Amino acid sequence: MLNVVLYEPEIPQNTGNIARTCALTETRLHLIEPLGFSISDKAVKRAGLDYWNLVDISVYIDFESFLEKNNYPQPYILTTHATKNYAEIKFKDNDFLMFGRETAGLPEVIHKRFSDRRFRIPMRDHPEARSLNLANSVNIVLYEALRQNQFFNLI
Amino acid sequence: MLNVVLYEPEIPQNTGNIARTCALTETRLHLIEPLGFSISDKAVKRAGLDYWNLVDISVYIDFESFLEKNNYPQPYILTTHATKNYAEIKFKDNDFLMFGRETAGLPEVIHKRFSDRRFRIPMRDHPEARSLNLANSVNIVLYEALRQNQFFNLI
Repeated sequence: MLNVVLYEPEIPQNTGNIARTCALTETRLHLIEPLGFSISDKAVKRAGLDYWNLVDISVYIDFESFLEKNNYPQPYILTTHATKNYAEIKFKDNDFLMFGRETAGLPEVIHKRFSDRRFRIPMRDHPEARSLNLANSVNIVLYEALRQNQFFNLI
Repeated sequence: MLNVVLYEPEIPQNTGNIARTCALTETRLHLIEPLGFSISDKAVKRAGLDYWNLVDISVYIDFESFLEKNNYPQPYILTTHATKNYAEIKFKDNDFLMFGRETAGLPEVIHKRFSDRRFRIPMRDHPEARSLNLANSVNIVLYEALRQNQFFNLI
């Protein structure tokens, strides 16, 4: 089983879609507050469709609380500020994949703490090309991690 | 360069998000009408953010028109009705990846015509687990195709 960590997500539809994927892949979803929405928001519910009863979701008041309650994991950090390619990671069971806010990304303190664990999703080199949608980014990296592990017991 | 084909997409946000990914990966996007929205719809524009000027998008009045104008390609069909895993595909340059409607999938005639080119994205085996979000499905398969081709000239 894998873990997806969203640091202060801002847009309810993204978290809803990510929750749907987590439900369908038996991936644990960790949300670090503050969130840009209420977890009971209609937009989150709608994007997650009727998968909410299938998802294993944990909400933390801050990043320290997330670390402490998960025995201080070493997450992989997905960020456009990295140079290494996510496909170079050798993913294994119980790994944590962490993603920043839609607009502001991750704070400098987290970039520094995990500087050698930062990876990017390759994109076109163009001045106007900034980043993929958050939910899409999560799905790309999560399914690469699943693929490397023979999709666990998914069929 | 790869090709994503959406057969009669219904939800503007999904097509907008897919257009954004296509823009960022230099993937051609093919839309087969009828669409469930106007291509100039605000919701499509918003989801695609300001990437619309970067995307190579073609709209066809029907599936035959799509086939004819692209020299009768043999698309890979991504569908929950398949048994083979998308990760088994050996993707190459100029491949076409085709996806059905969000609710109704693809018509029987297309399932029959390309029956041996149908592949699925592995998911949890649970009676309530139906399908991933369309935009997420496209991103998962497209990035696997890109990965297999050393991401072309993406960085």
